[in-house]
Amino acid sequence: MIKMKVVLMSISARNKMKGIVKKVEKGTVAANVKVEVEPAVVTAMITKEAVEELGLKEGDEVQVVIKATEVMISKG
Amino acid sequence: MIKMKVVLMSISARNKMKGIVKKVEKGTVAANVKVEVEPAVVTAMITKEAVEELGLKEGDEVQVVIKATEVMISKG
Amino acid sequence: MIKMKVVLMSISARNKMKGIVKKVEKGTVAANVKVEVEPAVVTAMITKEAVEELGLKEGDEVQVVIKATEVMISKG
Amino acid sequence: MIKMKVVLMSISARNKMKGIVKKVEKGTVAANVKVEVEPAVVTAMITKEAVEELGLKEGDEVQVVIKATEVMISKG
Amino acid sequence: MIKMKVVLMSISARNKMKGIVKKVEKGTVAANVKVEVEPAVVTAMITKEAVEELGLKEGDEVQVVIKATEVMISKG
Amino acid sequence: MIKMKVVLMSISARNKMKGIVKKVEKGTVAANVKVEVEPAVVTAMITKEAVEELGLKEGDEVQVVIKATEVMISKG
Repeated sequence: MIKMKVVLMSISARNKMKGIVKKVEKGTVAANVKVEVEPAVVTAMITKEAVEELGLKEGDEVQVVIKATEVMISKG
Repeated sequence: MIKMKVVLMSISARNKMKGIVKKVEKGTVAANVKVEVEPAVVTAMITKEAVEELGLKEGDEVQVVIKATEVMISKG
Repeated sequence: MIKMKVVLMSISARNKMKGIVKKVEKGTVAANVKVEVEPAVVTAMITKEAVEELGLKEGDEVQVVIKATEVMISKG
Repeated sequence: MIKMKVVLMSISARNKMKGIVKKVEKGTVAANVKVEVEPAVVTAMITKEAVEELGLKEGDEVQVVIKATEVMISKG
Repeated sequence: MIKMKVVLMSISARNKMKGIVKKVEKGTVAANVKVEVEPAVVTAMITKEAVEELGLKEGDEVQVVIKATEVMISKG
Repeated sequence: MIKMKVVLMSISARNKMKGIVKKVEKGTVAANVKVEVEPAVVTAMITKEAVEELGLKEGDEVQVVIKATEVMISKG
């Protein structure tokens, strides 16, 4: 018999949306990553180090993660 | 003759997504606003003052606005 | 007869201050923009893409926009 | 034969530190959570909703997660 | 003879503006503080704990401090 | 008799941790600074200008400063 326990990690960040990496642009220390989150394209500025550690490249299935305190609302 | 010049305001924030307000929950100074941005629901924590100044209520057509430096990516 | 409806966009961000762009410094993916907001100079780190999309250059009349959750206070 | 593939989720946020929840204080929409990250205590302001979804309570083993763009440095 | 060395603490945050506290509104865990930074009024959402630790009250001379990565620019 | 009054500046940011600069990597406008905050290493992305103004270099004794609203919690 095989017992398995899979513990999924949960993060307090309220906003998590699945998408596909469309473009990775690396600078010296920063990087811009564009993720298609149908029907929008979300842009993330993260460290180049993170891009390399996660091995981010075009076509990757990823999630964009955004803390609720960082979201603004415009109207009109 | 009528001349009109409409100057649209543009903001440097890279991420703007249209949605419909689904829920507004007000605390003493903060507020949580849930916006349906098909197919996701985005949660924003903003000031109660902003909710009142914009008159945010269920059903409103709004945009969620997020600076690129605030977006993270998870993979796997 | 001419009917016009101008709908001004409002954003939940509490802090909006008018100023004049004093300097734009572009890196590979990021950019630093200095805006004179009398009597101070405000520095913004935004994406190079945003600088180009807005066509930001010295002398431009702009607004700096800052979400209330990002503001700290020091005393003493 | 049994094949298993465990894919660990990685997040671009550079700063992840293990700790123990010391205190959870809930407001109407926001919450303050204190996490002992030896030898420091880290304070997080997150949504009350996140506290409830994660079931955060005193004694929980957690990680604090902080994006590199949010970290400042002081000297002197 | 008396020797004194005063080392001023410097913080990497690019934006520091002097002002006078105009209003302090405390919630259960968060607080809104309005600071007159002539000619503008800046709103900060900070923890209630910080308000109490700094003893913030109307009339206090303070500085608002904002990291450059948190500043957006709008034009038009 | 000599009277001295030293007024320490306090900042509302809840999280301040002492550490030693381990690495400074400068890009065109941004910089990554790694600070050993025993037992962790904290990464900060700040402006290159701030690195130069503070004269940050390997071995410096510094503090990392993080606003509570920027801290997330993960569990599991």
